[in-house]
Amino acid sequence: MAAELRDSIVGDVITKAAEAKESAAVTRGEITRRLADYVVGSRLEDIPAAVRREGVRSILTFVGCAIAGSRHEVVEIALAALLPFSAGRQATLLGRQERLDVMNASLVNGISSIVLDYDATQFKKTNIHPSGPVLPPLIGLAETRTVSGPEFLHAYLLGVEVECRLANVIFGAGGNPGWHVTGAVGPMGAAAAAGRLLGLTAEQMHDAFGIAATQPGGLREMYGTMCKSFTPGRAAQNGLLAAILAAQGFDSARAPIEGEKGFAHVLMQRPAPPELVARLGKEFEISFNAYKPYACAIVCHAAIDACQRLLREHRFVPDGIRRIELRVPPVTLELAGNPEPQTGLASKFSAQHAVALALTYGDVSHHHFTDALACDAKLAGLRRKVEVAAEPALSKSQARLTIHLDNGRVLTCFVEHALGSLENPMSDEDLSRKFHQLVEGILPRAQADRVADLCWELPTLADASVLVKATSPGA
Amino acid sequence: MAAELRDSIVGDVITKAAEAKESAAVTRGEITRRLADYVVGSRLEDIPAAVRREGVRSILTFVGCAIAGSRHEVVEIALAALLPFSAGRQATLLGRQERLDVMNASLVNGISSIVLDYDATQFKKTNIHPSGPVLPPLIGLAETRTVSGPEFLHAYLLGVEVECRLANVIFGAGGNPGWHVTGAVGPMGAAAAAGRLLGLTAEQMHDAFGIAATQPGGLREMYGTMCKSFTPGRAAQNGLLAAILAAQGFDSARAPIEGEKGFAHVLMQRPAPPELVARLGKEFEISFNAYKPYACAIVCHAAIDACQRLLREHRFVPDGIRRIELRVPPVTLELAGNPEPQTGLASKFSAQHAVALALTYGDVSHHHFTDALACDAKLAGLRRKVEVAAEPALSKSQARLTIHLDNGRVLTCFVEHALGSLENPMSDEDLSRKFHQLVEGILPRAQADRVADLCWELPTLADASVLVKATSPGA
Repeated sequence: MAAELRDSIVGDVITKAAEAKESAAVTRGEITRRLADYVVGSRLEDIPAAVRREGVRSILTFVGCAIAGSRHEVVEIALAALLPFSAGRQATLLGRQERLDVMNASLVNGISSIVLDYDATQFKKTNIHPSGPVLPPLIGLAETRTVSGPEFLHAYLLGVEVECRLANVIFGAGGNPGWHVTGAVGPMGAAAAAGRLLGLTAEQMHDAFGIAATQPGGLREMYGTMCKSFTPGRAAQNGLLAAILAAQGFDSARAPIEGEKGFAHVLMQRPAPPELVARLGKEFEISFNAYKPYACAIVCHAAIDACQRLLREHRFVPDGIRRIELRVPPVTLELAGNPEPQTGLASKFSAQHAVALALTYGDVSHHHFTDALACDAKLAGLRRKVEVAAEPALSKSQARLTIHLDNGRVLTCFVEHALGSLENPMSDEDLSRKFHQLVEGILPRAQADRVADLCWELPTLADASVLVKATSPGA
Repeated sequence: MAAELRDSIVGDVITKAAEAKESAAVTRGEITRRLADYVVGSRLEDIPAAVRREGVRSILTFVGCAIAGSRHEVVEIALAALLPFSAGRQATLLGRQERLDVMNASLVNGISSIVLDYDATQFKKTNIHPSGPVLPPLIGLAETRTVSGPEFLHAYLLGVEVECRLANVIFGAGGNPGWHVTGAVGPMGAAAAAGRLLGLTAEQMHDAFGIAATQPGGLREMYGTMCKSFTPGRAAQNGLLAAILAAQGFDSARAPIEGEKGFAHVLMQRPAPPELVARLGKEFEISFNAYKPYACAIVCHAAIDACQRLLREHRFVPDGIRRIELRVPPVTLELAGNPEPQTGLASKFSAQHAVALALTYGDVSHHHFTDALACDAKLAGLRRKVEVAAEPALSKSQARLTIHLDNGRVLTCFVEHALGSLENPMSDEDLSRKFHQLVEGILPRAQADRVADLCWELPTLADASVLVKATSPGA
């Protein structure tokens, strides 16, 4: 035992020393270069199987969300506006029969994927939706050249790695004045993914990161409006454009992320720490992906779990509720504390509304976040009974709920790990079920099965465009 | 006299009271609405003739710069990258025979206009180039519908008004961590201009401002690289896209500029003051436009003037210089203090190089900012003799130059108002001369005359596309 302990300590010391050496070597100007070198040089076979599998789970989720979201009014409006500006019809719009060029399709697919606020979220230091900016360019490019399933998956994992690392170290330490993080770092993730597929050199990838870094977007003021969905879609386009320009030799700054007037300093007034490129190829950000069982802000999910648990364990009806005490982490109030949402979109950012929905319907799917239900008098009456307050000790996946009934009974519930959190993940079966719920009514069952199968088989597909094409109704 | 004095004081009190009332009425959420109301409701005949004339001078300058810039490597690369993504060939590229769709042409025309860093600059609280984001969408739209010269000019003035007001109150008070201001506020200026031509309602214009506000771009880290030119072009596209989406009913936040998580707070951590919309329609930002006699950062111009004056007044040659003392305002060092530029683009941001060029060639035109001259050994030797230091009391258009010659003579010069500044403006004739210098070698003289004439006649043109089409070689 003593020998094992000693080996463990010695091993630890060696690792720490190696990390310290690595950090010291990362001087300003080198951070972007290291990121570029990693993205260009990475080999899929060096990425652990569990990490690759998480990529597949995330892609399946994106595809389901985009197909379901593709019929939303926001997408209809964007499509009507963009059609006259599309250079041909090379690219599939998930869930739709219309086609656009790769650039415009990236915007629409990005909007579709996020409009239900149901796509995977990183459950770490920020609430970034990693796929929205990264997958649309890959989906578009897959129909303009032959891209194998493994190449597609690999490019996706690299894009997620880049944007999530940026999100963590630049936005994850607090003090965010209101950046929609997905839009701020998404262009660089999209540039990494698209650039990988386009076969950029390390030098070109470096430039692509610069062109992407100078196009941050997304203000939190937009939450609850159509513009929230616009942000990941535009980030996808910004990154794709960056990669396409870099491929032609368009150049950029040497230290776009870490420079004195670069991304980290301008957006957050902080340096980009060497941590940004530490343990590249050893730790993978996709491992921190969380999947949403409910179609609203993830910081409301623990509260919904609590409602469902109380409904299962006790006999009561919403009409018999006098008042509701909800305790949530501060971030829930910050992102989803709207007491009187007036639209379907806005109602996704209201913990009070989420509780009212959960207590009324039990299930809380994407069908529940409509304008009509946001303005429903009974739901509004119930959500006004929710007294919500922040409890700083709670984590993002925790909530404490107390329901006072008219008959004097008091029901309480503490959710330690919301369903979909890293400690309580959705299983592959859960994700398949969610996928089918999402696409039901848009794709016939046989086609839905085929799309799901193609997603799960992505790591062995010879041509990823087979999956892409299969997502269009009638394909 | 006493009566006049009394009237003047009373008048002043009434004005002040009216302004105070106006300020008090501007509560949060109202600022964007007021801007939108103004842009939609403004009438050209209410804008003073001198203001309209300044708009024409500015458009002439843009057209000349864009034609000259259109042959730059940066434009060639962007064009090669974008051609496959262009939906048709509806829109002219100034100075070129290729055509693109309106959206892609906006990016290329934006790049062309600024790549020489020679376009008009606002000489007030920031160094914004107002035209780069605003004119390209107008140029593109003018070929897709009938736009009269007055409508074109009016939309341009409104776009400039919006973006410059935003620049002044949000970025002009100091503390800018590194935003390229043209790119940050440009999308809103472009949205105003394009939205006006598209006939948006006030409600739609409000949404267009929101969609534009969530797409700020441009980091100063990019100065001296191709990405600097990309910024105004992308801002043009962002604003055009915002107007097009808003026209279809795409919505956005109510307080995108002034909200708690809106533009002003997120980018600069400061509120958007009511001053932003004070005296709309009474004061005009285009009045603060300055025109560049030299093709480099405007904060270097006083130093170039000083060199030219000493060359005129004294007999000396660069070989006879021992050392040069240059005193400039701090902003010159901040934006253009690069002691060893290695490329043509970077050399535009080097006061040291500007002095070396001026002393060697006398004139400093866009032909002097090449990679070859940036790396020229003789110029490099001369610029290393320039000891530059900041003198906080100097304004942006001032410089103090002392040249110590080998023969012991000491020449000194103080420039109080650089040529092109508001106090020492370029005349219409100066601007015409600059235009012809710019387009020489690209357009035949007869065509150049015709384009210049059409610019000056813009306020009476029935169809602005006549001007736009005339800028293509061989038109």
